Amino acid sequence: MIIVREVAQLRQAIAERRQLGTNRAKAEYGSAAIQQHTVGFVPTMGYLHEGHASLMQKARELSDTVVLSIFVNPIQFGPNEDLDSYPRDEARDLEVARREGVDIVFLPTVAEMYPQPTRTKIHVSALTERLCGASRPGHFDGVTTVVAKLFNMVNPDLAFFGMKDAQQVAVLQQMVTDLNMNVTIVPCPIVREADGLALSSRNVYLSAEQREQALVLSQSLRKVREVSEDAVQNSFTIGQIHQMVESTITSSPLADIDYIEILTFPGLEPILAEQRLSDVQEDIIVALAVKFGNTRLIDNIRLQKAEVLSHV
Amino acid sequence: MIIVREVAQLRQAIAERRQLGTNRAKAEYGSAAIQQHTVGFVPTMGYLHEGHASLMQKARELSDTVVLSIFVNPIQFGPNEDLDSYPRDEARDLEVARREGVDIVFLPTVAEMYPQPTRTKIHVSALTERLCGASRPGHFDGVTTVVAKLFNMVNPDLAFFGMKDAQQVAVLQQMVTDLNMNVTIVPCPIVREADGLALSSRNVYLSAEQREQALVLSQSLRKVREVSEDAVQNSFTIGQIHQMVESTITSSPLADIDYIEILTFPGLEPILAEQRLSDVQEDIIVALAVKFGNTRLIDNIRLQKAEVLSHV
Repeated sequence: MIIVREVAQLRQAIAERRQLGTNRAKAEYGSAAIQQHTVGFVPTMGYLHEGHASLMQKARELSDTVVLSIFVNPIQFGPNEDLDSYPRDEARDLEVARREGVDIVFLPTVAEMYPQPTRTKIHVSALTERLCGASRPGHFDGVTTVVAKLFNMVNPDLAFFGMKDAQQVAVLQQMVTDLNMNVTIVPCPIVREADGLALSSRNVYLSAEQREQALVLSQSLRKVREVSEDAVQNSFTIGQIHQMVESTITSSPLADIDYIEILTFPGLEPILAEQRLSDVQEDIIVALAVKFGNTRLIDNIRLQKAEVLSHV
Repeated sequence: MIIVREVAQLRQAIAERRQLGTNRAKAEYGSAAIQQHTVGFVPTMGYLHEGHASLMQKARELSDTVVLSIFVNPIQFGPNEDLDSYPRDEARDLEVARREGVDIVFLPTVAEMYPQPTRTKIHVSALTERLCGASRPGHFDGVTTVVAKLFNMVNPDLAFFGMKDAQQVAVLQQMVTDLNMNVTIVPCPIVREADGLALSSRNVYLSAEQREQALVLSQSLRKVREVSEDAVQNSFTIGQIHQMVESTITSSPLADIDYIEILTFPGLEPILAEQRLSDVQEDIIVALAVKFGNTRLIDNIRLQKAEVLSHV
């Protein structure tokens, strides 16, 4: 596994891997073979958990070269957010990367990523106005800008993102499409603890009591799944489902709700409260952000149109 | 010369040229040669003149493959600007491209470039707030966004832009640096008619009388050059130079001044009016935008620090 901290080294390491692969492909398939080598990219903020590991596994499965980046990106944090306290553990992260068969790890400093404060920002409209975009102004401009930078450094064929940040997936897909970026976004399923809690680097902030009560997030979403799969209950209205989720979450005295939203996916358009679940003609996402003390957790469930309809 | 109108065809044509070049380089230099083939890109809005031709010539000189794009980009025009009347002549443009040895011409429709209205915009701050950015709100977001799209389609090693749009060069250079785009911006000198008028596709709008009076732009800038090269006059202040340019331009009764600005380049920072030209510690640009009837012309001169100092 190659560990690099500078952009120039990263480009060089990837070019060598691509060259190697192309030469191998030529030997096997002849010189007509154009670009046989696939680079898969997993951008992260480190403090890697099994959710990240699942992205690396998917990347390993689909790519000849797997590139992992670890960078806590300051421009996606608001002034009162947890940039300084965001958990970091480089040694453990490198162990995880090795275990998952990563080829190249990119570990830049802030000065390497932003030699000068960036004057250039990428903004995706509409999709960023709700959910975390409303709670965290400027957050997604920071995400799209850093991901575009990383894409320009790595030039990946595939990029892997967890569906826990479903809005991030939708926003990045929009950016890639709008800017004709030559990369395929591969969304990967949420990974959960045995008791249902979605994995997050921020879970380490939780006290034992908060950790216990945080289960209301996944519990409320499991109820949504059950409703969607029930031939009678899927005639519930969006308003009724919202109500059901809210009452499950408020059963935890420590839960402080930031938002509960039921939207189309990936368009993130609101759905009328009166509409029946089984009548919605698009995929749906039920997305939550709930604070426990200072720790803000997110979770979501995506209901694909086909799943809901199959029970009508 | 290959003419393509779709993004997929463009990518394919460039991939084939790169492959060809890499194979040729391998035969010549052995298999250790990584990416020998250089792609040079000249993005234009068509109605090509000798200014564009000079970009293609420079690209031809420095690149193995020259790609020209012709696209009148709607999102860089304001609601009251000349999008609909912008001059177009595809047949003549293709003749010019052939004459200059272009390999691939990309001629997309608006629907091919924007299958849906783009929700993603790239914004460069600071540099876009003065000059044409102040007169044409949103213009540079349209430019940076479409150039990023084209860069992602062509993946060029070199991209050629005329210094007539000096602010555009500064803004694009900032974007490329900030977003770590793997392309080198090559600024090329302004090309002028024999009498000094800077070439522009918009010159065709001018009446004979306007055309005659429009010479005050280049005349005023020539005076600036003379001052900078004169060991006595280069102690003029920035305010005095501004005054000199203004009085030259207002000697034309048809000239309607949009702006006259003297700024650092490429930072585009204002310079104190009291400062002497010979004391400024950076490159300087004197930039003009002047309307003749409905036609807005721009011109500029760049004084490199070394040039001014050599006469102190």
